[in-house]
Amino acid sequence: MKNTFFVCLFILTFNASVHAQVLKSPDGNLILEFNLNEAGTPIYSLQYKQKTALKESKMGFVLKSDILLNKDFKLTNTQFQSENNTWRPVLGEQKEIRNQYNEMKVDLLQDKSERKITICFRLFDDGLGFRYEFPVQENLRHFIVQEETSEFNLAGDHKAFWLPGDYDSNEYKYTTSRISEIQTLMLDALNESLAAQSPIKNVAVQTPLMMKTSEGLYINIHEAALTNYPAMFLNVDSKTFALSSHLTPDAVGNKGYIQTGSHTPWRTIVVSDDARAILASKLILNLNDPCQFEDTSWIKPVKYIGVWWEYFIGRGSTWAYSDDQDVVIGPTDFSKLKPNGTHGANTKHVKEYMDFAAANGFDAVLVEGWNEGWEDNTAFKKERIYSFTKSYPDFDVKELSMYAAHKGVKIIMHHETTSSTVEYERQLKDAFQFMVDNHYTAVKTGYVGPIIPRGEHHDGQAMVNHYSYVAREAAKYKIMVDSHEAVRPTGLNRTYPNWFAQESARGTEFESFGGNNPDHTTILPFARLMGGPMDYTPGIFQGDLSVYGSKKNKLSSTLVKQLALYVTMYSPLQMAADLPENYMRFVDAFQFIKDVALDWDDTYILEAEPGDYITIARKTKEKQEWFVGGITDENPRIATIDFSFLPKGKSYVATIYEDGKDADYQTNPQSYAIRKMVVNRKTKLKQQLAAGGGVAISIQ
Amino acid sequence: MKNTFFVCLFILTFNASVHAQVLKSPDGNLILEFNLNEAGTPIYSLQYKQKTALKESKMGFVLKSDILLNKDFKLTNTQFQSENNTWRPVLGEQKEIRNQYNEMKVDLLQDKSERKITICFRLFDDGLGFRYEFPVQENLRHFIVQEETSEFNLAGDHKAFWLPGDYDSNEYKYTTSRISEIQTLMLDALNESLAAQSPIKNVAVQTPLMMKTSEGLYINIHEAALTNYPAMFLNVDSKTFALSSHLTPDAVGNKGYIQTGSHTPWRTIVVSDDARAILASKLILNLNDPCQFEDTSWIKPVKYIGVWWEYFIGRGSTWAYSDDQDVVIGPTDFSKLKPNGTHGANTKHVKEYMDFAAANGFDAVLVEGWNEGWEDNTAFKKERIYSFTKSYPDFDVKELSMYAAHKGVKIIMHHETTSSTVEYERQLKDAFQFMVDNHYTAVKTGYVGPIIPRGEHHDGQAMVNHYSYVAREAAKYKIMVDSHEAVRPTGLNRTYPNWFAQESARGTEFESFGGNNPDHTTILPFARLMGGPMDYTPGIFQGDLSVYGSKKNKLSSTLVKQLALYVTMYSPLQMAADLPENYMRFVDAFQFIKDVALDWDDTYILEAEPGDYITIARKTKEKQEWFVGGITDENPRIATIDFSFLPKGKSYVATIYEDGKDADYQTNPQSYAIRKMVVNRKTKLKQQLAAGGGVAISIQ
Repeated sequence: MKNTFFVCLFILTFNASVHAQVLKSPDGNLILEFNLNEAGTPIYSLQYKQKTALKESKMGFVLKSDILLNKDFKLTNTQFQSENNTWRPVLGEQKEIRNQYNEMKVDLLQDKSERKITICFRLFDDGLGFRYEFPVQENLRHFIVQEETSEFNLAGDHKAFWLPGDYDSNEYKYTTSRISEIQTLMLDALNESLAAQSPIKNVAVQTPLMMKTSEGLYINIHEAALTNYPAMFLNVDSKTFALSSHLTPDAVGNKGYIQTGSHTPWRTIVVSDDARAILASKLILNLNDPCQFEDTSWIKPVKYIGVWWEYFIGRGSTWAYSDDQDVVIGPTDFSKLKPNGTHGANTKHVKEYMDFAAANGFDAVLVEGWNEGWEDNTAFKKERIYSFTKSYPDFDVKELSMYAAHKGVKIIMHHETTSSTVEYERQLKDAFQFMVDNHYTAVKTGYVGPIIPRGEHHDGQAMVNHYSYVAREAAKYKIMVDSHEAVRPTGLNRTYPNWFAQESARGTEFESFGGNNPDHTTILPFARLMGGPMDYTPGIFQGDLSVYGSKKNKLSSTLVKQLALYVTMYSPLQMAADLPENYMRFVDAFQFIKDVALDWDDTYILEAEPGDYITIARKTKEKQEWFVGGITDENPRIATIDFSFLPKGKSYVATIYEDGKDADYQTNPQSYAIRKMVVNRKTKLKQQLAAGGGVAISIQ
Repeated sequence: MKNTFFVCLFILTFNASVHAQVLKSPDGNLILEFNLNEAGTPIYSLQYKQKTALKESKMGFVLKSDILLNKDFKLTNTQFQSENNTWRPVLGEQKEIRNQYNEMKVDLLQDKSERKITICFRLFDDGLGFRYEFPVQENLRHFIVQEETSEFNLAGDHKAFWLPGDYDSNEYKYTTSRISEIQTLMLDALNESLAAQSPIKNVAVQTPLMMKTSEGLYINIHEAALTNYPAMFLNVDSKTFALSSHLTPDAVGNKGYIQTGSHTPWRTIVVSDDARAILASKLILNLNDPCQFEDTSWIKPVKYIGVWWEYFIGRGSTWAYSDDQDVVIGPTDFSKLKPNGTHGANTKHVKEYMDFAAANGFDAVLVEGWNEGWEDNTAFKKERIYSFTKSYPDFDVKELSMYAAHKGVKIIMHHETTSSTVEYERQLKDAFQFMVDNHYTAVKTGYVGPIIPRGEHHDGQAMVNHYSYVAREAAKYKIMVDSHEAVRPTGLNRTYPNWFAQESARGTEFESFGGNNPDHTTILPFARLMGGPMDYTPGIFQGDLSVYGSKKNKLSSTLVKQLALYVTMYSPLQMAADLPENYMRFVDAFQFIKDVALDWDDTYILEAEPGDYITIARKTKEKQEWFVGGITDENPRIATIDFSFLPKGKSYVATIYEDGKDADYQTNPQSYAIRKMVVNRKTKLKQQLAAGGGVAISIQ
């Protein structure tokens, strides 16, 4: 894991000066300036190749109640340090990640109160991370954050790809607009009906916030290593283009309970004049702590299908076993209920999925609706909705466990909590033991609806602690976790590699209700995925849901683009989300899903423009095998695929899955062609992508 | 357990009438009338021997948001039933409890909304219980209670023994006043500094509320079987003497999340013209569900001493092992901290307590401060304060476990949670397993300070669920629970007999800070103890704390009254709270504590007047052995002890522990005499009690 090539540490300590402290990135392109203004407020600014990435921006906190920890500071010490080494992720986009930065730590003291904070800046070639550190001190021990007052003052009216600020949901559509337009467009952006919504009252957006300046600078603001602290939103001043931190409050309006001897998450600003460098950035992972587990041999990528999509398409399949909405876990004897006849997770049906998984090389079958309690699960009004150890009468745990072993596939456990973490934590150990007893090695957790404990939010400190608690507990049972509706990720998959994927954004399921925009997946890698892998659940071949009867939704993508997503949307957990019958109708296209790898030696961002297109090539972990995915938004385009990532002196046969000539995501999404082509490192392929289309290439 | 002598069930079902429905108690003394008024609001009233116990009082609910479930009802059905049987508590004041009542159930329907509720009245000879039942129905499934609108309208300006309404504390002093005076006295009553306080904004008091009418009627209002519902307070109208229910809100102001197919706790009104009948009442236990456990052989009474009182008396002994307030459970290596030298729970000291316990026949030694985390425990600002499985470096778990076994005593585990139930529940199973591994069979839990999850209250639905969850989980490990600072008990010790004692009131510890009034223990049995046993921790022989140095507090009781409390304050868990050295100074008086039983065949309330005096005799379970305790308030009195509870035709030697002739709780509390006397069932002893004094008698 820790393959440190060399660590260069040099510590310079000198007395405080009234001049700005300057820190340069290793390549010299980024320059950070830090100073204290006349009020004693910490300020910083960030330049990239003589362009302003962030203007002078204030830093600090207001503590409860109205204690100002953002002025009256003097600088007592500055300390520099550098590091340049590499490390190997357990699962990842590349086998080795370089961690190279110059660090500056400024120690600040408020004279009268004798309160101290330290601000740590780490400047990488691809951006800045900074965090606040709270040293152990006599006059500050426990405190409550009223608000963090970090500013991220933009130099202009940038183009932004944003989600409306909401403490409980990140499942909105992205809006693309100028910063100045955010206020006007906010109401529209919030016009979604989601299971839990707590829109921020002032104008605020979510991170990762992807922006592009009119000068062609790409700026991404997010955070890294979010633990024991609320998630950060960004207040937006539509006139001055000033952004500022807005933390998620708890049930009583507080924004973080802190004990000194600790620090905040890192605030990250990834910057480049090349959009590809944003996608290639490993800054957020680098700012996370190394893996916490000694043994990681049990953490493996998973390709899966699931009893899942059938619940969304209007075909009548249900999570619930009966239609009796008056069930109560414990008292209700489910074996005595009248089955509704539409229950998806029944033994026979799950076996069919297992057969299909085994026949097609999938690792696992996700089964939702296997457990007691789905009858009234949308009430969001009781602490205890589900059992996580008791299956419905028609789901034979033991038989399916044996069948899975026989077939060589795993079942992915599903723990929908309906956000009652109180009850989930009570059942957690028994639930994980149940999984171990039945040979389940991965769980999909769900946090639909408002949080219980009441008044808490998905993105608050208490829930942030909950998610990582679940990940740590799961690791004790060698269980991998894929959390849905949890707080957006911040690179903690480095520290807890068993927390190997999250949803935390608008996924494929929304294609069946609100719909996704055709540019959605060209934004996600620049936004949501900056924090970590996403269980986007691509692979929908039958995008016109009207074929099933009751729905009229149409996928915002061609069939080929669905293939390309397996490459462009990095995740070591990938689902083939469609019904097996649809894969059987397109066996040749399905081959790509069967073939595509999940874990990589290297990744090459070939082309990228947020909101427009992405083309990525990846080399399979420990194999001479490559996969390429290219996608476009609603506009057709010609992708230029440069195969220079291939080894010297060899040629390979590439299988190209391409949109048909008449393909179009709206009118003809299932039109595709498959051709073979010999390629080598000199090949530059001009590939036509349909509107809402893509290309997928395998070189095996 | 269920020794049912006979059950008489007769069910009369007839059509609704517009006349009042009338229910009489088995002895005919109590008459309940139920009706619907012109607005369709349910109303009830209660008469006792032609005297009005409760005037016409409305019933019902307001649901969220402003849905009225307290009017527009019509009566659709009335059903009567009676029961007369007995049952045996696992531990108790008597070996057999009669459960005799007449029941009336009224089914009510709101025409337009088609919502249904049922009100169930059970009339015993000693009072009324009623509860609301929510049948399963099509138009009401999950709902949120905005407020319960039950009224308890008093017929006059009664004398009341009350605690101010506070969602987070029941550790106030009792105030004795007329109902009309409550409003004026409220500010004074709230003038206490407690670890968690959330005083109710309007004028409200806690239950059990003990009252006495000018006609000499005793009325006690409380609740029974409080589960999955918030605890009830009583709003007080100082002018009309109307009381009404006021439920504890949750973090967002809601007052109960209900799914139909359920019911509220019972609202209880115990009534008699004899104060002794109030103390003898088993109505609240009768309204609780039978014991939920098959095997109760492991549930045993416990007499204990503890490393405890030394923390309160200003002698310098500390819970904390070090003075480093910057500790963090997990990261901090406690073995590397500098010990403060005052840590009470060190191996050597605990062994001294064990030696003393073994030498004097105690079952157990409570050890507080054994575990990591006490250094900053009063901050109330972090989720995770304590480890419940890791001891301080100077507390040798294994050695003490062996020593305890060798000495034949148990250690009582201490789990102070500082009200972070989030963290406690995470550690709960490991903590209980730790206890099993080390042969601990009882735990004292503590809920000092504000609740985490933030915004929740000690008396809210979430915490009510927490406490009973802990009791049920503990039972799985055969662990008995003594909860401190939890919601006031409501007889759940019948259902979960391992939850064998609670504090939930101002206990002896307050003698070391705020002080208790001399009449405190003459009120507690009429108030707090109506709900269940109290771990009051009596037995303080050295009541003048100035002897230890830094404090000036003086106990509100003579030494003999401390002995009497072991009889007057029922609990199967009793502490001898003072330092062993003080018992060694008064070995003859200490003999009573050594002798007194904890579990009883029968109990005889000989004399009682709330706020003034109590005299109780009890017969030891399965032994021809009796103990008598008599106490008075600040006034000396002559107790009349009628020994007619003794068997016919036999005489016994009684050992009488009495206040010395010059005894007085303020000036000479340690003056006492011990004499022996032959008694039989005809003996009527006139016994002088000093001011703040008592008498204790053993007949063995």
